[in-house]
Amino acid sequence: MEDETLLMLPGPVPLPERVRFAMARQAINHRGAEFGGAYSNIVRVLKTCFGTNNDLMVISGSGTAGMEAAVSNFGKGRKMAHLINGKFGERLWKIGERYGEAVPIESEWGTPLNLEALKEALENGCEVVTMVHNETSAGILNPGAEVGKICRKHDALFIMDGVTSIGGDNVKADDWGVDVAIVGSQKCLAAPAGLAAVSVSSRAWEKAVKNPPYYFDLPAYRKNAAKSPMETPYTPAVPIFFALREACLLIEEEGIEKRVARHHRMAKAVRAAVAAWGVEMFPKTDAIHQYSNTVTAARIPKGSNDKDFRGHVKKFGIQIAGGQDHLKDVIFRIGHMGCVSAPELLATLAATEYAIQKSGHKVTSSGVMAAAEVLG
Amino acid sequence: MEDETLLMLPGPVPLPERVRFAMARQAINHRGAEFGGAYSNIVRVLKTCFGTNNDLMVISGSGTAGMEAAVSNFGKGRKMAHLINGKFGERLWKIGERYGEAVPIESEWGTPLNLEALKEALENGCEVVTMVHNETSAGILNPGAEVGKICRKHDALFIMDGVTSIGGDNVKADDWGVDVAIVGSQKCLAAPAGLAAVSVSSRAWEKAVKNPPYYFDLPAYRKNAAKSPMETPYTPAVPIFFALREACLLIEEEGIEKRVARHHRMAKAVRAAVAAWGVEMFPKTDAIHQYSNTVTAARIPKGSNDKDFRGHVKKFGIQIAGGQDHLKDVIFRIGHMGCVSAPELLATLAATEYAIQKSGHKVTSSGVMAAAEVLG
Repeated sequence: MEDETLLMLPGPVPLPERVRFAMARQAINHRGAEFGGAYSNIVRVLKTCFGTNNDLMVISGSGTAGMEAAVSNFGKGRKMAHLINGKFGERLWKIGERYGEAVPIESEWGTPLNLEALKEALENGCEVVTMVHNETSAGILNPGAEVGKICRKHDALFIMDGVTSIGGDNVKADDWGVDVAIVGSQKCLAAPAGLAAVSVSSRAWEKAVKNPPYYFDLPAYRKNAAKSPMETPYTPAVPIFFALREACLLIEEEGIEKRVARHHRMAKAVRAAVAAWGVEMFPKTDAIHQYSNTVTAARIPKGSNDKDFRGHVKKFGIQIAGGQDHLKDVIFRIGHMGCVSAPELLATLAATEYAIQKSGHKVTSSGVMAAAEVLG
Repeated sequence: MEDETLLMLPGPVPLPERVRFAMARQAINHRGAEFGGAYSNIVRVLKTCFGTNNDLMVISGSGTAGMEAAVSNFGKGRKMAHLINGKFGERLWKIGERYGEAVPIESEWGTPLNLEALKEALENGCEVVTMVHNETSAGILNPGAEVGKICRKHDALFIMDGVTSIGGDNVKADDWGVDVAIVGSQKCLAAPAGLAAVSVSSRAWEKAVKNPPYYFDLPAYRKNAAKSPMETPYTPAVPIFFALREACLLIEEEGIEKRVARHHRMAKAVRAAVAAWGVEMFPKTDAIHQYSNTVTAARIPKGSNDKDFRGHVKKFGIQIAGGQDHLKDVIFRIGHMGCVSAPELLATLAATEYAIQKSGHKVTSSGVMAAAEVLG
């Protein structure tokens, strides 16, 4: 039987019909006007989502491919500082280790980044900084503007993983001084998995290394994107380009400001539910570290565990995410990125409230109604 | 207006309806039974196409990503011999240069590989050999079995790019002693572009290097493919997996032997047409180097050029390929891989015959009828 589970994950996200059927198109020559037109539509819309006028290129691969393209083209052979407060911050560090001297600047998952340690690392010769803007593993939103300022002050390149924020939350890559930003197709953009987009500032181009991996050679992507019609250096995953183009047209029709506001409203509704339940949010926020607006991470009530808790939610055909690595059995995560609808969110909160009660935790009041008040 | 050009290229190829609509499926969790089932169907069928019992893994990326995965996991820091008689042989060399001491063993494009020079290189310390089985840039089929024997004799690892032969021509990776074989989804398999599959022998696993690019870390792919349900280490391009699964089921329904025989018959028909036209085939064959059975490369008649020649064919809404790099204006190439039908081939040969006549070349006899005799 086909699996018709409603995915309420921090990606992949449910796909709008227009996006799905865009992929049924017959194969075309990827060095021609139709492909170039799709690529150019994507770039136009993504630049508004990134908040950038920089070059923007699309790689056929997952978000991880985009992260590796960034690190390998600008970090190879260099000393890099990797800000870490979750799984994807760690991944950038692991990638960094394959290319240069990779210095981890670790905080507990879901707690604020250690910016004092970052300044020290930059004074000790780090030339490149990586940060995950929206750390889905812990549900925390890290401070792009503040880290950008620190990087500029020390003339370091700033690589920002916006895989799960771009297209759903405010990102101002140019204003913040982000040199390289990355997004994945299957998150806030609500397209299928398979593409990563990377923007590169002129400052970064000047410092690009020689001989990154062949498949991730960003200067080759730049050269081919400058052609008319636009091209990619190697054969692209054409159906995913068509899907992402359609997803971008949907973003343009909605308007990026409205889309971000919608994500904020969804997040506010989920947080209202969590508060009503009397369940503890997982991240520790401060003046510049906030709760994620695209995924909410909260603690599983004491006495329950990941399997039982999410099992209760699954009874309704809804899949929420658990914790990764050492956060398994500690947190649950509800994704609300992309084109998640109000009915989908209400149903998810109802199923989660049921799971909370089945865990033996007495809710303070109805989370579903608290969310309905925000969404109504 | 949508581009409805018939693509008669050495990839991408026209897609069967079942394959295209498989992609319209709603997003699913890629760490679950449905995805694992699709991945496992793909592996089962591709092993018959590769002629292998080795591990086989699928990477979200183009054929080039597969080539780089092979070279980086098994050639990094080593001395490699790259057999070259066309553009893709050259590409493997260029990739090799980013990872180790890359020794090119060059022949003119479309002429036999220099196996004597290969033996010498192996005696001089090369530990890894790369060869393109079906070199589409020149329309020549290189000798897998013979090169495999030479590699075994010198205990060298044999990486074979089967991007445009596997699934359309005879490939016996295990019998030939191929350690690492690669295929792309958008060629003989008749799926969309976006995936590469790589098989790895136990001999190769023993010699795998440490720290290849993170995204191409084949041991991580192997580990995740061994899970039940099967997984990939990073988020896969799910719709292309669904399409490739459907394409593999089509291959299974046809049977790989029949499919190869069909490709051979198509190739024979095109070669019969070329002979009837009195046009010169481009490749220089010998006892072990043959004409490709998935793409036919022949010389553009004197006095014409690429633009004019293919322009005549294009009048009928059919796109054939020209020559790449220095072969532009020298050759034209007709792709006949995947699920190309008899009507599509006959129409293409008619359009090509028209182009030949418009070039001022008097055909000896009707190529279309010569092909019809083969296909009928």
